[in-house]
Amino acid sequence: MIKEIDQITQDIIKTFKVKEGINHLSGPNLPSRQSIINIITTLESIIFPGFQENEILEEEFLSYNIGEKLLRSCQSLMAEISKSIRYRNQENSNEQSQNDEEASQLTFDFLKTLTTIRDMALKDVNAALKGDPAARSREEVILSYPGLEAITVHRMAHELYKMNIPLIPRMMNEHLHRKTGIDIHPGAQIGESFFIDHGTGVVIGETTVIGCNVKVYQGVTLGALSVKKEEANIKRHPTIEDNVTIYSGATILGGTTSIGQNTVIGGNVWITSSIPKDSLVYNRPAEYILKNRYGQQ
Amino acid sequence: MIKEIDQITQDIIKTFKVKEGINHLSGPNLPSRQSIINIITTLESIIFPGFQENEILEEEFLSYNIGEKLLRSCQSLMAEISKSIRYRNQENSNEQSQNDEEASQLTFDFLKTLTTIRDMALKDVNAALKGDPAARSREEVILSYPGLEAITVHRMAHELYKMNIPLIPRMMNEHLHRKTGIDIHPGAQIGESFFIDHGTGVVIGETTVIGCNVKVYQGVTLGALSVKKEEANIKRHPTIEDNVTIYSGATILGGTTSIGQNTVIGGNVWITSSIPKDSLVYNRPAEYILKNRYGQQ
Amino acid sequence: MIKEIDQITQDIIKTFKVKEGINHLSGPNLPSRQSIINIITTLESIIFPGFQENEILEEEFLSYNIGEKLLRSCQSLMAEISKSIRYRNQENSNEQSQNDEEASQLTFDFLKTLTTIRDMALKDVNAALKGDPAARSREEVILSYPGLEAITVHRMAHELYKMNIPLIPRMMNEHLHRKTGIDIHPGAQIGESFFIDHGTGVVIGETTVIGCNVKVYQGVTLGALSVKKEEANIKRHPTIEDNVTIYSGATILGGTTSIGQNTVIGGNVWITSSIPKDSLVYNRPAEYILKNRYGQQ
Amino acid sequence: MIKEIDQITQDIIKTFKVKEGINHLSGPNLPSRQSIINIITTLESIIFPGFQENEILEEEFLSYNIGEKLLRSCQSLMAEISKSIRYRNQENSNEQSQNDEEASQLTFDFLKTLTTIRDMALKDVNAALKGDPAARSREEVILSYPGLEAITVHRMAHELYKMNIPLIPRMMNEHLHRKTGIDIHPGAQIGESFFIDHGTGVVIGETTVIGCNVKVYQGVTLGALSVKKEEANIKRHPTIEDNVTIYSGATILGGTTSIGQNTVIGGNVWITSSIPKDSLVYNRPAEYILKNRYGQQ
Amino acid sequence: MIKEIDQITQDIIKTFKVKEGINHLSGPNLPSRQSIINIITTLESIIFPGFQENEILEEEFLSYNIGEKLLRSCQSLMAEISKSIRYRNQENSNEQSQNDEEASQLTFDFLKTLTTIRDMALKDVNAALKGDPAARSREEVILSYPGLEAITVHRMAHELYKMNIPLIPRMMNEHLHRKTGIDIHPGAQIGESFFIDHGTGVVIGETTVIGCNVKVYQGVTLGALSVKKEEANIKRHPTIEDNVTIYSGATILGGTTSIGQNTVIGGNVWITSSIPKDSLVYNRPAEYILKNRYGQQ
Amino acid sequence: MIKEIDQITQDIIKTFKVKEGINHLSGPNLPSRQSIINIITTLESIIFPGFQENEILEEEFLSYNIGEKLLRSCQSLMAEISKSIRYRNQENSNEQSQNDEEASQLTFDFLKTLTTIRDMALKDVNAALKGDPAARSREEVILSYPGLEAITVHRMAHELYKMNIPLIPRMMNEHLHRKTGIDIHPGAQIGESFFIDHGTGVVIGETTVIGCNVKVYQGVTLGALSVKKEEANIKRHPTIEDNVTIYSGATILGGTTSIGQNTVIGGNVWITSSIPKDSLVYNRPAEYILKNRYGQQ
Repeated sequence: MIKEIDQITQDIIKTFKVKEGINHLSGPNLPSRQSIINIITTLESIIFPGFQENEILEEEFLSYNIGEKLLRSCQSLMAEISKSIRYRNQENSNEQSQNDEEASQLTFDFLKTLTTIRDMALKDVNAALKGDPAARSREEVILSYPGLEAITVHRMAHELYKMNIPLIPRMMNEHLHRKTGIDIHPGAQIGESFFIDHGTGVVIGETTVIGCNVKVYQGVTLGALSVKKEEANIKRHPTIEDNVTIYSGATILGGTTSIGQNTVIGGNVWITSSIPKDSLVYNRPAEYILKNRYGQQ
Repeated sequence: MIKEIDQITQDIIKTFKVKEGINHLSGPNLPSRQSIINIITTLESIIFPGFQENEILEEEFLSYNIGEKLLRSCQSLMAEISKSIRYRNQENSNEQSQNDEEASQLTFDFLKTLTTIRDMALKDVNAALKGDPAARSREEVILSYPGLEAITVHRMAHELYKMNIPLIPRMMNEHLHRKTGIDIHPGAQIGESFFIDHGTGVVIGETTVIGCNVKVYQGVTLGALSVKKEEANIKRHPTIEDNVTIYSGATILGGTTSIGQNTVIGGNVWITSSIPKDSLVYNRPAEYILKNRYGQQ
Repeated sequence: MIKEIDQITQDIIKTFKVKEGINHLSGPNLPSRQSIINIITTLESIIFPGFQENEILEEEFLSYNIGEKLLRSCQSLMAEISKSIRYRNQENSNEQSQNDEEASQLTFDFLKTLTTIRDMALKDVNAALKGDPAARSREEVILSYPGLEAITVHRMAHELYKMNIPLIPRMMNEHLHRKTGIDIHPGAQIGESFFIDHGTGVVIGETTVIGCNVKVYQGVTLGALSVKKEEANIKRHPTIEDNVTIYSGATILGGTTSIGQNTVIGGNVWITSSIPKDSLVYNRPAEYILKNRYGQQ
Repeated sequence: MIKEIDQITQDIIKTFKVKEGINHLSGPNLPSRQSIINIITTLESIIFPGFQENEILEEEFLSYNIGEKLLRSCQSLMAEISKSIRYRNQENSNEQSQNDEEASQLTFDFLKTLTTIRDMALKDVNAALKGDPAARSREEVILSYPGLEAITVHRMAHELYKMNIPLIPRMMNEHLHRKTGIDIHPGAQIGESFFIDHGTGVVIGETTVIGCNVKVYQGVTLGALSVKKEEANIKRHPTIEDNVTIYSGATILGGTTSIGQNTVIGGNVWITSSIPKDSLVYNRPAEYILKNRYGQQ
Repeated sequence: MIKEIDQITQDIIKTFKVKEGINHLSGPNLPSRQSIINIITTLESIIFPGFQENEILEEEFLSYNIGEKLLRSCQSLMAEISKSIRYRNQENSNEQSQNDEEASQLTFDFLKTLTTIRDMALKDVNAALKGDPAARSREEVILSYPGLEAITVHRMAHELYKMNIPLIPRMMNEHLHRKTGIDIHPGAQIGESFFIDHGTGVVIGETTVIGCNVKVYQGVTLGALSVKKEEANIKRHPTIEDNVTIYSGATILGGTTSIGQNTVIGGNVWITSSIPKDSLVYNRPAEYILKNRYGQQ
Repeated sequence: MIKEIDQITQDIIKTFKVKEGINHLSGPNLPSRQSIINIITTLESIIFPGFQENEILEEEFLSYNIGEKLLRSCQSLMAEISKSIRYRNQENSNEQSQNDEEASQLTFDFLKTLTTIRDMALKDVNAALKGDPAARSREEVILSYPGLEAITVHRMAHELYKMNIPLIPRMMNEHLHRKTGIDIHPGAQIGESFFIDHGTGVVIGETTVIGCNVKVYQGVTLGALSVKKEEANIKRHPTIEDNVTIYSGATILGGTTSIGQNTVIGGNVWITSSIPKDSLVYNRPAEYILKNRYGQQ
């Protein structure tokens, strides 16, 4: 009987009255996940032109191609940023037109950073090509390295994060987290020529600072020692200086922990205090026990 | 030549005769992955109303909105459960109409649990907000925390698991596993206010029992010590009591292993026997070797 | 003003002149990600017929069903392989028709391996059913085990890898990496009855050799000790012999490292040299420190 | 240059300032064509259940199937009617909630007419089956007679027209006009057992009144003699009494023109004044000239 | 209240009990409109290869392209024909496997006619190019003449009609009727080099017989004089011999009416008896009244 | 057997060798129907902004909205025009870059006409509002009058026709022909404030010239007397001067036929020679025979 569905509907709606926080019923819309995914896809095709296209990209028509994509992203991003700002300002009395103006300005400021992001993307591609013996070509890196996509989207999200736009940067990076298993908080500051290999399980926290030419493998955590809410505004995550390599499964924790330049951190190493530059850090070898399964050791 | 394709077709079809088990040619259809994904998406939008919508959700039309979604899910779920039951009963001689009646009853019983699941979802959101210093708002948690989505879908799949419906609960949780890297078996019993941060690589086994206010980080395994098929029906996975926190990469194994309440398990710790309540468990610090890369130690 | 967009467009296009490598503007198209995903999906439905279908697959029409899918894949794969070969040959002066002929031959050679791959898929399904106490049926394994999908697609990608086709095999496996968190390089040689449970974070390197009846859990790395570019063409990853089980989080590194048959590698173990057959390898137990959180130990 | 696009954009936007009427920039949204098409499709599948489905419609699940479709249509229609009312009231100061309440009431009143419309649809199907020697079965009529679809949608649109809802009824009938070439104004009153054969070019004006068992062929116009705007509110189109047949290409004009019952109007006849009942009206036969093409007559 | 929807649902379901004929609830599925549209689209792309493609059709891959499309159509058409046969046989006790075998045979017989249909399509294209001064090229005819598409689909539907397959041929032609306004019954026999210009409103009845090189303009009806159900199995529609041209709006009625070869029928002429060969038939000229609008004649 | 499909494939491919003209196998691609439909849809939403949108169109973001649509259309149109030019030039030796430059110039010239087309669209809307007593508002006209859409798309196609671009203008108008039953050749010259009511079956030939304030009803033909191929380049269709109204079913033929200004042409009138200005032309009244069906006259 549909009457039962009606009953369940009424029961569910009753839970709307008492429970604030997981209904979004009134007020302005929140940013749309699908729009943000579309924006990311379009911006990636500006940064790596010709790699996602089905048709040959003619140089003749290049400025229209890039221009159209920019304008399309611009328009969508303005709308999403505008929602995001309205959400942020909801207790204040800003007028809609003020929000729209701010959204428009922030969008332009963001789009202007794309040339720099393209510069960095090239360096990231080169870092992957250099860092992985299995990589055969730039094309292979661009088409099949999840770490490259994660860092490229992060570089965009980080620009929006710096502009103090809520929700959108996190939604961007979380989209990549779901695609790649690489979880970078948009707050993290990451230098040039960054390479994440394999990447599944990598976690890079909000206040992490990473230098240039850093290489990170799957399962690495750059995390916080403390998870006290009241310390949300201080540096909780480590600093990684230039030319550091961190092998798979290593964990580096703490806002005052710093890994000095040129250091290599071995797999599975657990670090909670600073390491001087030029170090080699690794777990004791041969810690395991080896027995014959059938009794004889 | 298409003749070659014909030859390959004949060769493949020959393999159908001798190999049972990976063809599904006769008998009733199996549950459809796409339908199950659609059902999940609809149910999530009932639990978190207004977060997946592109249009503002007017309170005026709320009962139609929820009612329509419920009825849509109800209808799809009945069809999928009916397939699932037919599959389960295939050797017995139940009539189709009996299966449909059972499917219909199970679907209602399931939908009635949604109000409770909404209650728990609110508590899970609050747990995330409290547990992660980087979380700024409930909206951010709902829009971008994969752990929240994983536990919410798990709570639904677990209800179906308890009803002894085959295939569907596993397909639900596996869908979330693919999206989030968090692998929870639908059999796991998980209490209120559960929070998984980052989450990639988390594995929670079928007979795990978890209390309230438990917090789990990326890469945590709650697994079995034995993988003997004949022990499939006994408790193989650990019990985690209330207020336990388990940091990244920790592994807790065994059906009789119990982690006492208020305990904190440090990162990468490997546990195969019970821990008393109020404990702090962590690996020995500074186990690594630190050398200068260029020879000097 | 759209003038600003125009300015940004011009700025971005300027970066095309100086930066080779991340534009793909001239020359032939690269393989299309979407086509490759479609090919994978179709081939999977040939290997596991009736599992992805919405309609009952009638035996009467089976040869048309399989034939149509084969011809569809054949045609798409030829086109993608043709692009891939053109890309590989771009500096040489091969004619288009020569490339097409080669693409056509390679496609047939590949499709002929599908019967063997179906044989292996059945054995992989049986290995999962046997290896996981939670697995209830072959149907459950096929519908919800990510490790099965990863190994099945790998077996196809590996055939293309052996034919020296660039880009496509990596794109195939990377698609599965994104879906499952399991990162297998298409170069890896993997024997019959392979089972990966849970799988998130598994990494299997290009020159890995794996025997029959091997079982691997989440977070296992079969990796290289050295990442020197000049060693790209030597064996850099380990050999795993028959009947080996490797528990979660274990790391096995190095091209000369070999794990002897029947060996069990415990969770989180870190191995960089060979292990004799019939071994049981595990970390020292109880390495952790256990304190009462409130001061008393 | 994108500058040129910018210039054209500016030029187009300038035309917004001076030209009212073809911009819809401010104020509430208008009804969405796509939503209205979706509503029509859903309602048609309620009226002719099982004809648009890909899956067998089980009687067991029938009430959920119909209920879900009703609720889905209900929700969409409320939203579209609400937009339509806001549009109608835009100069008055009705509050949104008042509009929503009215939309909700009108939607229910409309949905309650569906049982009657189903009754009439059955009679219309039977009229087609009886009226066309080429019709083999009810199934054939429902699946392939455009006239049936046109009259069915008209019967729905007419109910909305009677409720004085602007835009939506016209959009509904115009959708069918585009599909079938049959242009019925939603204002037309049409009795039971109506059959339009072939239908292309049929035009039935707003104030037409048609009795029962009327049959109309392609190219028939039931139109107005006068098109003076100031006569918009008087009856401008003819009355067709019961059991009338009108053959292809006939034109009947004028609000006081009435075709008496049982009358047959021949093809291409042009009528501007009333015809008594039981008439047979046809053009003079053999009006054409017949010559031999090559000179001899 | 959803209760009201429940009430309406119950009321609608009540109408299912008493009204046979417009519910399709039990028994086998009917042919699917969407599948039939897809089949038509695929077959058209076999007949006019390279015109609907986005990518260049390489001769090298041609046999795969055509083969894949044939096999795809073959498989879909078999399924639809099988449903159609089951529908036809529903009172008889034919077994499913018998139906499937018949469907399979009919599908092959049909596909074998495609080469002939391609021959005729070329002649139809040439007829259009020759017959319309505005036609510039074969490409223009294929890309933009609705009459060509209508006759091409008719030639396919007619083959299925001759095989006594119910529903599908009518659904095919009705799809084209909706696209083009040209309503050809699949029973009509139409010779080579047929050209319909503009075409809107053309109706060609079931038992029409048309010779070669016939040209027909918009609004032409080739219809029946009588619409008595009991005459369904006799020839009700006219015969048009070779080289006849019929201008717009002409109506030719009756099963014994024959238009002799080389005849030209003028616009709007109404014919109900046979016309000898080599005739020119036209309405009396200047039948209209011409007045000055402002009183003076 | 798939062998039979192979045989049919071979038979069809054989027909490729001998039959030129209905294969498009080599040479450049032809314009894509789908792209042209998308371009039309986008351009219509520039001309009638806010009518096809689901979201409210904010004035703040208007220039981005229009700019993005323009750039999107610009890019697609350039590509389609480029294909069209290559097709036209296929026997000459123009270089690709020359074609692209020409395509680019033509696209701009076309887009610059959009402001004028918007001016004319407003006048066409007003003509419909004035000309049809049933029209209630501009919104109703824009949302539901097929004649308005037909003339608007024609005005765009005509601009491309004047630039001597092959195929595309015909494909545009034919798309509207299929949607509306109104067949306007892109060559026709049509003045301001043009209104087609109902429209099904209207045909307007290539060399027709129509003045301002002309009103046309369904089934009107403005056609040619002669269809000799060698007269393709002379004026074959009539001239309609300002303020003329042509009622349904009227036919006006011949390149020297001119309908003087202010004239009204009655329904079904057939005209092949010029009519002076200020005329009223209609068929003799009461030409039909009226009998009692049952014998008495």
